[in-house]
Formats: sequence, C-alpha cells, structure tokens
Amino acid sequence: MSGEDAPTPQPQPEQEKQPDEEPPPAALEAPQESGSSSPEAAEEKPLSIRALVLTGYGGYDKVKLQVKQQKQPQLAAGEVIVRVKACGLNFAELLGKQGLYELLPPPPVTLGMEGSGVIEAVGEDVKDRKVGDRVIVLIRSGMYQEVVVVPADSTFPMPEQMSFEEGAALPINYLTAYLMLFESANLKPGKSVLVHMAAGGVGVAVTQLCQTVPDVTVFGTASASKHEIISQGGVTHPIDYRTKDYVDEIRKISPKGVDIVLDPLGGSDTQKGFSLLKPLGMIIVFGAANCVTGQKKNLLAMAKTWYNQLSLSMLKLMQTNKGVCGFHLGYIPDEQLIHRTMFKLLELYSQGKIKPRIDSCYHFEEATNAMKRMHDRQNIGKVILLPEAKKEEEVPKSSPEPVENVEKTEAAIIEKKEETTEEVKAED
Amino acid sequence: MSGEDAPTPQPQPEQEKQPDEEPPPAALEAPQESGSSSPEAAEEKPLSIRALVLTGYGGYDKVKLQVKQQKQPQLAAGEVIVRVKACGLNFAELLGKQGLYELLPPPPVTLGMEGSGVIEAVGEDVKDRKVGDRVIVLIRSGMYQEVVVVPADSTFPMPEQMSFEEGAALPINYLTAYLMLFESANLKPGKSVLVHMAAGGVGVAVTQLCQTVPDVTVFGTASASKHEIISQGGVTHPIDYRTKDYVDEIRKISPKGVDIVLDPLGGSDTQKGFSLLKPLGMIIVFGAANCVTGQKKNLLAMAKTWYNQLSLSMLKLMQTNKGVCGFHLGYIPDEQLIHRTMFKLLELYSQGKIKPRIDSCYHFEEATNAMKRMHDRQNIGKVILLPEAKKEEEVPKSSPEPVENVEKTEAAIIEKKEETTEEVKAED
Repeated sequence: MSGEDAPTPQPQPEQEKQPDEEPPPAALEAPQESGSSSPEAAEEKPLSIRALVLTGYGGYDKVKLQVKQQKQPQLAAGEVIVRVKACGLNFAELLGKQGLYELLPPPPVTLGMEGSGVIEAVGEDVKDRKVGDRVIVLIRSGMYQEVVVVPADSTFPMPEQMSFEEGAALPINYLTAYLMLFESANLKPGKSVLVHMAAGGVGVAVTQLCQTVPDVTVFGTASASKHEIISQGGVTHPIDYRTKDYVDEIRKISPKGVDIVLDPLGGSDTQKGFSLLKPLGMIIVFGAANCVTGQKKNLLAMAKTWYNQLSLSMLKLMQTNKGVCGFHLGYIPDEQLIHRTMFKLLELYSQGKIKPRIDSCYHFEEATNAMKRMHDRQNIGKVILLPEAKKEEEVPKSSPEPVENVEKTEAAIIEKKEETTEEVKAED
Repeated sequence: MSGEDAPTPQPQPEQEKQPDEEPPPAALEAPQESGSSSPEAAEEKPLSIRALVLTGYGGYDKVKLQVKQQKQPQLAAGEVIVRVKACGLNFAELLGKQGLYELLPPPPVTLGMEGSGVIEAVGEDVKDRKVGDRVIVLIRSGMYQEVVVVPADSTFPMPEQMSFEEGAALPINYLTAYLMLFESANLKPGKSVLVHMAAGGVGVAVTQLCQTVPDVTVFGTASASKHEIISQGGVTHPIDYRTKDYVDEIRKISPKGVDIVLDPLGGSDTQKGFSLLKPLGMIIVFGAANCVTGQKKNLLAMAKTWYNQLSLSMLKLMQTNKGVCGFHLGYIPDEQLIHRTMFKLLELYSQGKIKPRIDSCYHFEEATNAMKRMHDRQNIGKVILLPEAKKEEEVPKSSPEPVENVEKTEAAIIEKKEETTEEVKAED
C-alpha cells in the first residue's frame, strides 16, 4: 500500500531454482565482452548470481541472500543485461516482507524495484543503449541481484556526474514526489506543503522539488535529531512529531493551515491532515505506514488504521472546498508519463536542482540492518543495497550515523544444491 | 449546495421594511449627480426601489417583485452606490428558494449574487471607482434590485466592449469554472474533461476556458437539441444523456476514460464520474442538482442523492490513483484569490478568449419564467434578469429559443403600506 514502488510492468522471471554449489565471486561475462570465448561457449558456463530473495512472509529472516546458479541469459529482442552496482531500498519491500504489498509476486521472489548499473549486453532491436552504458533500472521486482535482464525501456541513461548510489536512489522516491506535487496536486508559487517523514527518501525528494517552485513553504515532520539536516535541505518548518502535536504546531505558524498534505501514514493522520487543509487544499494519501509497526503483519495496527481512516461525504468536501487523492506509483499504467517524468528528473539532476541524499549503503549480506534502519526510521535519505560481496575487513560504507540497536547479524547465505544444474546442462 | 454562488461576504442589509405607496418609475439621484439639490435635500427624498424578494421557502410564487421605499442610502467609507442594469440568475437561487442554500439569509431576503451597473455615488476612501463607471458586482445576496450599496471592493470595472448582460453573466459561472479547472484540478495540454449540463452557464464557461489550453478534449452532456450550439462553442463530444448512457458513450470514444470530471449533479452521477477517471484523474463535485426535481424541496430526491453518493476508502483512492474534490464558490474565504481570478477573467474577455453566452433576458416581472427556464434546463448559456420595468408593448428581449410550456404569468407586484414611512421621516 505504499506509493514507493515501481511502475514498469515486467516482472523478473524467478530463477532461484537453478542454483549451484559455492558462492564464488560473482562473474558474468557477457558474450560481447568475453573476447576469448564465443557466445555459444559463454552460454554453456553456468552463472552464479547473488540475490536477496523473500522466502516467505514474516520477519527479517525471511529475506535471504541466496546464490542462484543459472544459464547464461538469453536476450530477447529489446532486452539488455545489466550488472547491478547499487539498489534502492523502499518501504514497499518492508510491506512486501509482511505480505502487505499486493503487487509483489508471492514468495519465493527476488525483491527490489530500482537500481543502477552497467549494461553488459544488448539484445536485438536495442538502438539507444550500448555495452558499457551506465543506467538506472526501474522494474516491478527482481532488482536485488548482481545481474538482471530487463527491457531496454526500463533503463535510463545516467548523467556523467551521477554516482551509482544516487542513480539507485532516484526513481521511486523522486517519481512519487514529482507526480504527487505536479500531477495529483497543483503546486504553485506561494503554496505551502506538509510532508510527513520529511527525512525519508520521498520526504527529501519532496523538499528538493518544492524548492524548484518560488516561495513554497515546507512543513516537515521528523524526530528532533534530524531537524538540522532537513532544515539545511530546505524544510522551512521542521516539526518533532514525537514530542509535539504537529497540528497545533502548524496552526501556530500558519493559522489557516496548508495547501497540500502528503500523507504516507494513513489512519488518524489522514484525518489530521485533512483538517489542516486550506480551502482548495488537497491531501494525497500515498501509504499506510501506520499499519507497519513491528516486523510482522500486525492485524491490530491495520484495524486501527482502517478504523481511523478519513470518512468523507461529498457535502463535507464541497463545504470545505477540499480534495483527497490517492497515489500509488505501482498503479500508474501510463508508461509514457513515467518515462517523461524520469527524463525531467534527470534534467533537474543535471541542472543541480535535485540530488538524492544517500543515508547509508549496506551490502546484501547486511540487508537485515538496512531494513531495520528504515523500519526504525533512523535514515535521513535513501538506504542503498550493494550486490557486491562485502570484503572481510570492510567497515560499513558511508553511514553518516551509527546504526543504533541493530544487531550486526548478516543475512544467512543460502547455498542450494539442486538437480537443476543437471537440467541446465541437459538443456544446453 | 451549488458552486454557483458568490464569495464576497458582505450581506446586503434587508430593506423590505421601509416601503411606500406606489411603484413609481424608480429614480435615485445620487448626491453627486443631483446638482440642483444638496446632499441633505436628497436624503430627505425617500426612494422607491423594485426588488425580487424571497418571502418564504417553496414554489415560484415565493419570489415576489416588491417595491421598497427607503431613505437615501448613507454611504459608509469604502462603499459605492450602483444602479443595477442586469443580474445573473444562478442555480443557487433555485436552491435558495427551496431552503437548500445554506448561505442565503432566511426570508424575507432580496435574492441575487451578481450583476452589473453604473456607479452613482462613491463613499469616502474610494479611490479607484468614480461616478459613471460601469462595473460588475459580486455579493452574497441582494443583487436583484434597482439600486445597491456595496463595498467598492465588490465591484470590478467592465471592459468597454462588454455589455451589461455579459457583465452580469460573468462572475459566478466563470469563477467557478476557472477555479475548478486551474486550482482544484490541474488542467494541462492534452487532457480530457467531462462536464455535465454543458449548455448551462458553468458548462459554457468550462468549455471556453478549456480552449485556452492546447489540445484539451471536452465531453459535454446536454439534450440533443443543444448539441449543435455547444459543438460550435467548443465541446468536442456532445453526449445526449437523455437517450444514451454517457459512461458507455465516453468509453467508446476514450476507452481509458477522462482526466477531469466536473459534476454538478451528485448522487449516482458522482459514482459514474469516478468510474470514468483515468489514473491521476480528478472528479470535482460542485453541486447536487439531482436533489432539485420539482419546485419545492423534495425529500425523496435528496435521500436518493445522499444514498447514492460516492463512498470512498483511502485504499480505493490509492489503488486507482484517483482524486475527489468538493467545490463551492461560496465557501472560498480567500478574497484575494477571487479578485485575482476576476481580473484574469476580465483580461481573457478583453483578449477575446472568453465571452459569456446570454441565453435570455427577463424583466423582474418575469422572474418566474426565468426560473422555470433554468429549472427545466431549457437555457443555453446564462439567464439574465433586468431590474428595469417591462414596457407594456415589449416582447421578451433576445430570447434565442421560445420559452416552451412556461406560463406567461408575471410575478405579483406587491405594494406595501407600512408605518415605516413614518419612521423614515421621523429619523430624518
């Protein structure tokens, strides 16, 4: 139920059932690059691919690092192979883990909807991508693995100065923010915006995009420790929702309320947001984070969120001149709109007007820590997952704040031995 | 419950209780213009003013033409006196007559929220209006009389080429249309709009304003006899809602639906409109015309409209990426917005981009016919009321279609003899 998901409707074929013995340093040589071996020879070499797989609904232990063994991918027309360098973690994966994200195929399924990497091979009819291109990838699921085969249409060329981490952080948060502000709502100069979880991925994107419009006031809720950073990022009025009633705080500053409320929480917060709207104001509900309390599906939290949801009559809407929208990136079938918007976002990046804020990077082995960091709302900006195996001596990469109260256990590496190895060879 | 009402919050003081004997040809000489008499002398002369007064809730007979006798108005600072030349009839007056328009003060009350005329006197501190200025007036009630005293802020200078009828037709319909399309919704090039009652005042305004944006498709419902005219006016696809299911018709032309639905009907039509929305689409409910079936309040129609109203959950909104807004011009307290928008509309008029379509003009004596014409949806464009007394030999002015099945009875002229004449003199 989160807006933080991917629109492109090509589900990645699941490949867990073709494993092998050992997790070697992942190595895929695309036919074009392995000069010494012919494409036929390359196809005979099975690949080992590290992937983060949801094996069932429940706690963090359901997300397992597996090493898949599979055939060299056969590229269909219009497809490309991408070696993945970085992936974005979204709230949708936390929901999916609990069985609350209806667009995710049932387990076992490789998670992940966005990432960045380098093209290693292109199929027939692919004219505008070539081997070596740095690209952003946006798909429905299956991004959390070292190598993906995706339609070229699901890739977007990265500006030169963009890091892989930034590329992986951009699509879902910024598409969500942009489409809410400029398609669902109608952000104009002089308006005011309330965004919850202002330090989260969408919150940071919303804040930056608001600054592309003159004279927009941003109210952002976040815990006090994050206020300095989100203020520097452009939040006009940071509000500590943990110690203060944000409705009261906003009314003190702006007695008439705000023009736009972006609500990823649901339940009673939707009611509060609606009450804060000025005439002609609009609340956009794009999540139900209030449903997600613990590691597992919480029926009580869901019931409470449902019970407290905003109840509307047309008369009430008319007498207040207010509007209510739902937003869910996963349910936008208009791929042209997604593409146009992605290119606008890349242009804004190149102009220096937006820049994804990377909170922290975790190797696949540390996925549990990454998910906990997001679940516990410790992040400021985007949490990134790195397919590359963690070196033994390595310390966590660029984590600006220590991860508190998070066990340093790594996701179990599962190695499967199955008869599918035989099948692969038989098929060759 | 209609969006067709006026925002400026200065109720006109009721003056019915100061009547006199005869209805003479109305004659108010403002102090500035009556050169031969001093202001003091002018104040002593009581005025006779023809007015359309709602005397109680019910049928057409509750709207009576009365001749009020009153003192020369005392202008407060910032006020002006306007001799009214034309007034706009709105759906809100039909609702008000039935007791369904909660912003109208209780009877007896002079109806009317918009009109045009000539300034006859200006109070202190009025810098930007002068005697002789042709102005549009927008107030909460009290416009249907020969002379009004209003804040100068409630008047807007008319472009030279604008007729009084056009001036009276502009404010409520075009403010409603403009704010819905460009504030509540987010009309952009390439979008599609469904407007019901496309031949009505708001419908015509919506159609014209849609044409100020490139490549907008307009679906408009109206009975077949009006299709030619509304097509010429810019409706891309006129649909006869009386003989066809408009949902089916629109789906045939645009299988994916429409981007914006403007719904003055309410009830089951809101459900249908919602179902027609594309992802990221928006329905704006700005009336409940389905409540108004006969001359009087119809509890069954109201109950049915209420029962059939759209029921929403946030989940449904999210999964469909749709939005619902209410719109009611009377509940927009932002006068600056109203002023800015009025000046934009006057600019669009001067540029030839919008032009109110006058359906017909009725003298105050013919108010019943005017209301019936609107109630029975016979009008194409705006129905205008003229304060000037009808000359005996006169035929109805510029009525493009004969008024069918409408009795030609005139509203009764009520002449009151009351002790207030005495009181007026005593006060002098």
